[in-house]
Parts: sequence; C-alpha cells; structure tokens
Amino acid sequence: MELLESLVCIDKNLQVPVYLQVANEVICSIRKGILKPGVALPGSRVLAQSLNVHRKTVVAAYDELYAQSWVDVLPRKGIFVAKNLPNIAPRALTEAPHPVGFARKTLYDVDDTRIICQDMFVAPPEGNLVFNNGSPDTRIAPLELMIREYRRLASQKFNTKYLMYGPEQGSENLRIELAKFFSETRGMHVTADNIIITKGVQMALYIISQVLLNKGDTVIVGDPGYSMANEVFIQAGAQIATVPVDEFGINLDAVEEICKKQPIRMLFVIPHHHQPTTVTLCSERRMRLLELAKTYKFAIIEDDYDYDFHYASSPILPLASADDYGSVIYVGSFCKTIASGLRIGFMIAPQNLIDQATRLRRLIDRQGEQLLEEAMANLLKNGDIGRHLKKANKLYHERRDVLCHLLKEKLGDDVSFNIPNGGFAVWMEYKNGIDRLKVTQRAAEMGLTIGSGCEHYNDPLVRHNFVRLGFASMNVKELEEAVDILARAIKKVRGE
Amino acid sequence: MELLESLVCIDKNLQVPVYLQVANEVICSIRKGILKPGVALPGSRVLAQSLNVHRKTVVAAYDELYAQSWVDVLPRKGIFVAKNLPNIAPRALTEAPHPVGFARKTLYDVDDTRIICQDMFVAPPEGNLVFNNGSPDTRIAPLELMIREYRRLASQKFNTKYLMYGPEQGSENLRIELAKFFSETRGMHVTADNIIITKGVQMALYIISQVLLNKGDTVIVGDPGYSMANEVFIQAGAQIATVPVDEFGINLDAVEEICKKQPIRMLFVIPHHHQPTTVTLCSERRMRLLELAKTYKFAIIEDDYDYDFHYASSPILPLASADDYGSVIYVGSFCKTIASGLRIGFMIAPQNLIDQATRLRRLIDRQGEQLLEEAMANLLKNGDIGRHLKKANKLYHERRDVLCHLLKEKLGDDVSFNIPNGGFAVWMEYKNGIDRLKVTQRAAEMGLTIGSGCEHYNDPLVRHNFVRLGFASMNVKELEEAVDILARAIKKVRGE
Repeated sequence: MELLESLVCIDKNLQVPVYLQVANEVICSIRKGILKPGVALPGSRVLAQSLNVHRKTVVAAYDELYAQSWVDVLPRKGIFVAKNLPNIAPRALTEAPHPVGFARKTLYDVDDTRIICQDMFVAPPEGNLVFNNGSPDTRIAPLELMIREYRRLASQKFNTKYLMYGPEQGSENLRIELAKFFSETRGMHVTADNIIITKGVQMALYIISQVLLNKGDTVIVGDPGYSMANEVFIQAGAQIATVPVDEFGINLDAVEEICKKQPIRMLFVIPHHHQPTTVTLCSERRMRLLELAKTYKFAIIEDDYDYDFHYASSPILPLASADDYGSVIYVGSFCKTIASGLRIGFMIAPQNLIDQATRLRRLIDRQGEQLLEEAMANLLKNGDIGRHLKKANKLYHERRDVLCHLLKEKLGDDVSFNIPNGGFAVWMEYKNGIDRLKVTQRAAEMGLTIGSGCEHYNDPLVRHNFVRLGFASMNVKELEEAVDILARAIKKVRGE
Repeated sequence: MELLESLVCIDKNLQVPVYLQVANEVICSIRKGILKPGVALPGSRVLAQSLNVHRKTVVAAYDELYAQSWVDVLPRKGIFVAKNLPNIAPRALTEAPHPVGFARKTLYDVDDTRIICQDMFVAPPEGNLVFNNGSPDTRIAPLELMIREYRRLASQKFNTKYLMYGPEQGSENLRIELAKFFSETRGMHVTADNIIITKGVQMALYIISQVLLNKGDTVIVGDPGYSMANEVFIQAGAQIATVPVDEFGINLDAVEEICKKQPIRMLFVIPHHHQPTTVTLCSERRMRLLELAKTYKFAIIEDDYDYDFHYASSPILPLASADDYGSVIYVGSFCKTIASGLRIGFMIAPQNLIDQATRLRRLIDRQGEQLLEEAMANLLKNGDIGRHLKKANKLYHERRDVLCHLLKEKLGDDVSFNIPNGGFAVWMEYKNGIDRLKVTQRAAEMGLTIGSGCEHYNDPLVRHNFVRLGFASMNVKELEEAVDILARAIKKVRGE
C-alpha cells in the first residue's frame, strides 16, 4: 500500500507533533475519497520504515485515528479505514481551487451590495506626514498611566472579577465616574443608569440606529456632514434629509420646513465643531432645536465628541444639559481625548432607551473590555484624565494657532478658512481655481497625505474645493514641514 | 436684581473653576426662562460682593457668557440677557422630573420589545463559589505577558501606528499568525484575507446574521442548544428550526428532513463540545453535514470555540478544513483560551463574505483594540499562547477528572452524566425526582451559584432536569467545596 506513503508528507520543523501530522494527512485522504472505507492500512512497522520515523510515532497516529473513529481495528487482521463513513467518490484535486484550502467564494449566496459602507480605512504610506480628519496626538497619550492601571487590575485580587463576563452596560465604576465628570464639566445631572459604555461614538450611533430606526424613517443631518453617521442611518433603513450648514451651525429654518412636511424620527448634530466645517451651533439655535424636538417629537443625537477641546471660550453646555423632556441622546468618546485607537465612548439617554441599547449590546459583542473600562474609571477618578485634557488642550490650541498662521503666511490668498473655535481640524477652501484633488495628489508625491478619504457632502458628486486639515497630531516642526509641502504642491498645480 | 444671587450656587470644592460655575448657572436660568431676554444683570462689583467671590471671577463669568452669546454688552449701560434668544415661557421647576437632570423616559417613541435578548448578565454574589456555564480560570491567564506586550507596543516607536485608526478587518500581524496557527493545529489552509478579527464569537455570530439573514429565513440549530446564538438569529429576522442532539451530536436525518421541505439559509453547529450537552459531532456526521450543505446550499456556522481543549484524544479536524466548496464559516475565540473578559475572536470565510463582514464591522464600531490584537499576535508568534494552552489543557483535564470523580462519589445515583471529551463543563441530570431549580436555590443559600441563567432549550417551558457545571475556573479545593455544598443542597431538597 504505497499510496499512503506517497500521501503523507512530514515536516519535522512544525510545532505539530509528527504522529498528529501523519494522522491528519490520513484523515484528509479519507475525506477526499482517496482512501475508501474498508481499505487496509499498512502495518505500523512498514509505514514507519517508509516514512523514516519511529514505529511508536505511527502507533500513536493510528491510536489517534482510532480515537477519532476514522479507522476500524480488527484483531489479528489489521487496521482498516472505517466502514461506516459515507462513500465519497474520489475527486480530482483540481476540482477545488485549493487542495485543502478555502474556497474563494461562498457556495451559498452573499449579496455583495448589502452593506454599503464606502469609507474604508486606508493606511497612509509609512513615514508620510498626515493631515488627518482630526485625530489627537497619540505621542502624548497617558499610556504609562493606562498600563499602570492594567497591571494593578490584572493582579490576582481583581482579575477574577474583571476578566470574567461583566455587565453589558459597561463598568459600573466607569459609569459612576462619568456621571460625576458630566455633572462637573457639562452641567448634566445624570446617573450611572443613564449611561452605556460603547466602543467609541461609532458604536453608539450604530446601536441607536438599530434600536430606533425603521425602514423609511427620516433622519435630518447637516450637509456637508459626517459621512460615517449617514452610512449607519442608511444601513438601518432610514432616509437622509439634509439641511445646510452656515457659520452658526445647521440651519433650523430648513429643519422646521422638513418637520412641517413629514414625520421626522431623528436629527443628528455635532454642536461643538460641526464635522467637517468646524462651526459651533450658537446658543439661540440650541434652544430652538430643543423646542422643535419637543414639538415634532423627534430624537436629537448630540455628538459632542470634542466638547473638551474648545479654545476660544469655555465650551457651550450641551443640549442634553437643558433637555427636560427626554429628546436628546448624548454621545461622545475618549477616542479623541486619548487616542483614536483606544475604542471607548458613551451614550447617555433616558432609561427606556438605555435598556434596549444594553440588550442589543449583548447581542452584538456581549460586553466591552473590562480592563480598559476599569482603567479609565480610575484615571478619571484620580484626576489623570483631567490633567491630560488640560495639557492636550493647551498643546492643540497652540498647534491650531501655528497652523492657521502658517496657512495665512505661506498660502496667502490661494486658500480661505475661518479659525475654528476648537476641535482638531481646519476647514479650508482652495481659491484661484486651484483643484483640491490635484493638490492632494501632488502633496502625496512629496510625502504629505491629506484627508482621510471621507466624503463630506451627502452627494459625493457635488463640486467643492474644501479640505479638512487635522492639526492636533502634528507638532510645530511637522506642521511647518507639512505646510511647506502643501505650498509647493499648490505651486506645482498652478504651474500645470 | 437679587434673583440672580439666589439662583447661583457655588461649590469651591468642585474641579470646575468658580467663574465657570457662575456662568453655567446663569445659562441654566436663561434656558429655563427664569432670566428672560433683555433683562439686566447686576454689575460685576455688586454680584461679586453678594456671591462672596473676587470681582475678577464675575468679570470672567460675564466674558464667558458674552463669548457664548448668552448676553449682550451695551457700552455705558451694562450687561443684559441676549435679546435674540427665543422667548421661552418660564416653567415651574416641578414640571420636569429633574431640575437640570435627565428625563426618565424618551419623548419620542421607543419600542421596548424590539431587542429580545433575555439572558442578561447577573453577577454572582461576592465570595460565592460558581459553577459557571464553562469559563476558563482567569487566575492562570498569561496577563503578565500581555502587559509586557502592551508596554512594548505603547512605546513611541509603535504608538503612532497602533493607537491611531487601523484596518477594520483587524491587525494584519494577528491575521497572519492566526493563519499559521490554524494551518498547524487545524489543518486549515487559509490566508490572512480569509480572516476577520471580532470581539469574541458573539460578534462573529452577530455580523454573519446581519450580513446573511433576511426576514423569514430558516436557521437550523440543535435543541438543547446555545441560546445566545439563537437570539442573534431571531433578532436578524430568522426563524429557528430545531433538531435533536444525541451522543454523536446533532441529528442529521432530522436536518435532511427539514432541508427536503423548505429552503434553509444556515445551520449552526458546535462540533467539538455541543453547548450545552458537551457531545462531539462524530466524523461520519461531519462528512455527511458537508454533503448536505453542498446539496442544499446552506451556510454552516462552525463554532469551534473549544477546539484547543479536547482531553480524550486530539481534537477532530474542523469541518472547515475539509470544505472545498465554501460552505463553512469557521468562528472561534481566545475568550476561552485566556479569559472570557478579553474579547477577541475570529471568523474565517471565503473572501466575498469577509468583505461584507468587514464593511459591517466599520459601521458597528469601526475597528477592534489594536493594542490587544497586536499583543495577541506576538504571544502567538513567540509561542506563549501555545505554552499556555498546554498548561491550561493539562489543568482542566485534571479538573474534569476531579469533578467527575467527586460527582460520582458524593452524589451517587442522584445524578447522571457522561464524562465530556473536552471543553469546560459537565452536563448533568438530577435523578430520583430531585428538582434542579430547588437544588440551585438551596445551593445559592449555602454560597454556591449554579449556572449562568442561560436557557438551554429552545422552548423555555420545556421540562428538564439538567444543569451545566463548569469546572475549569475552580481549583481542586474549590471543586471539593462546591460538590460538598451541592451534596448538602440535594439532601435538603430530598428531605423537603
């Protein structure tokens, strides 16, 4: 039975024991129908010799095959491929795209257009400077403090608690600390029961949409706006109704206009520094928006992700702090406070919505990272987050000033922008017929990546000449280099 | 204007600066309609005196109010509540349930029955021994090694890469290491492109369901089975069709019967140690299941979460390792390898499904924890995970033997069970008319929590007398104590 020897291929460098390699290759051959039910296998001595392994190895392989019911052992007769296996016709190896691998395509039907998310992550080339969409500087993130907390929490005393399953709503300690933090910094008087911890703002938006939206519901958003939010609403079956955005935020006359014509389920607003234009929703509009929500009974999602980064004055208190009727769902995150990659955010709402959100959270991924949540609770409690916010605020304030100064000085009237009151980015328009896409391309050739690839306008075909330049993640020297490249790129485009 | 003084309440112990407290209280009063547009505010000197603060504090508060457009400053006249604010009628404070707090219920409509998840987390009482549903022992988890990796990854060199946004599909390093690991341990020849990293098996099941299931689709599951999976399928709009489970796994005659009658979209199977009965799907049925999937073109979700914990023999190679047609979606996790609370799992499938899954992942929460994923990649690469698995396997094997021995010795013919081939739990039936619910209650009174609260049968009203006793998270001494309590609880119930 030389077939078997030719089928079995051993690699002594693998971590898998040799006996198991032998057994697994036999199983593959049985499954493929090459070794048919009832066929005799060679004796262990013979096989050991031809495979050049110890006889005990083959005996162990056969024991394994017997334990897994792939072979029958008949006393004084020998070992045979088990008879009760379905008789599979042998197939040519070429029939499947990979011999023992994975098919390229599912046999069952998959609708390739079902999930519409367009803006997928693209890594910038290694070593490039990046004007991202507005991310914090991870180099100043308080990681040493986080790891100190991890170490403490991983100790025997805590680990049976925080490494087992935990509450779907998120760490109770963190929710209690957040309730205090929101009371002190945002004038919001909520309890831990009003809060669910999420993986960033993104998961909060996803959960809200899945719990509240039905097919055909209308969601009002600003245009230009935050495409990642729009995609979540659309995925949940909703229709987007857009309203213009001016220097005081979204246009509420337009909102009221829509409300008068049709039922509105939800309105999405980033009141502090609108994505992408960075404008702040003024106090007057905030109050009117709350009145509209009360009159027309829609939910307001208030995405206040950059509340803690406001440079011109203190930030305006959230809509949620003045909402007596239960209209506002307040979402935010620490992804901008510390690092985009540390996925931790929150959603605050009346308890009937939090209850539904918590149940959905269990179905989605059961719970968050307890170690991360507990660490964050402690950093909040002992003031580390507060100190980091102060430090970061000062730094980003300075970087905003440096970038705006550089843009004015180096690009002159080729560009136009307003200095943002806060946040992480400048919304800039190219003038004098300079084409943004061409500049982005030229800059990329010179080692500067501009933009995250996000679409800002609801209609991706709309013609505009804006870019969003994140300044927070670059230090002064890097900002100087980046604007320098930008200036040269513009010069090249003008010369074309 | 003594009203203002009475409205403003200062707490010098808060972290919020006093000037901001003053400003915020004024804003609240304006919003509530207590301070109406056009009303004059007291001069800074007067207000400072009556609030007993420095005059500069009040000036700063007024500057803040002006910056936020809540007040008009009229030269030589004074400071007035801004005129362009909507004229809100003053409301009695009792009108809202919390003065500046959160409504108890949303003003917009929330369907409280939309998300049906029933089995929510309940923490066992502090200090109790726990027969959980089958969790690993977090006390032996390689946390020191994880934290060593965190520290390395958090260093300047890596942190701009791993703390920024990253790929939705999960760490490429981890996917490469997993592909190797699956090839060596499971005979699966997949590439990193076939893998998406998820937050445990739960998120894999959720994503698959949302991408593949339409309202009214049928999913076949074993009964008794894994209720958390069933709930995900139902939430996605599917109908559950149940098949019986015997000592060799799910009944494939029953599966074929259903397939002949109606289209089947998906079948869910835990081939190694079926939840909850712990039986292993035998080789013959595995091959037949693949044939059925090919014939009737349904997707098989193979949840192989405890592949690495098989004590009787080496584990049987996954269905996915013999799937040439793209029928199988292979899911698993490290939640059982290391700790239930470390949420990291994987889903392996043909690329067309992985593409849709990746897009949905972005909408749900954008990406996983890169630090955790990169740390896991390194632990896999340098063999730490392999070493931990060997150690844990030996320990859990011993604990299984100890528990089974104790149950036989102490409970005798009051209970009946088969020794599981692997996994983390024993499926035990009470005999002699002993009521499982009563035993659970008595045991709880004596400091032993039994069960996770999960329903095991599709019909929660089905009468059965089984419990699932997780043994992996207790050491020998704890197992002895636990069985001791169990024996006393049974005695009490018998005496009732």
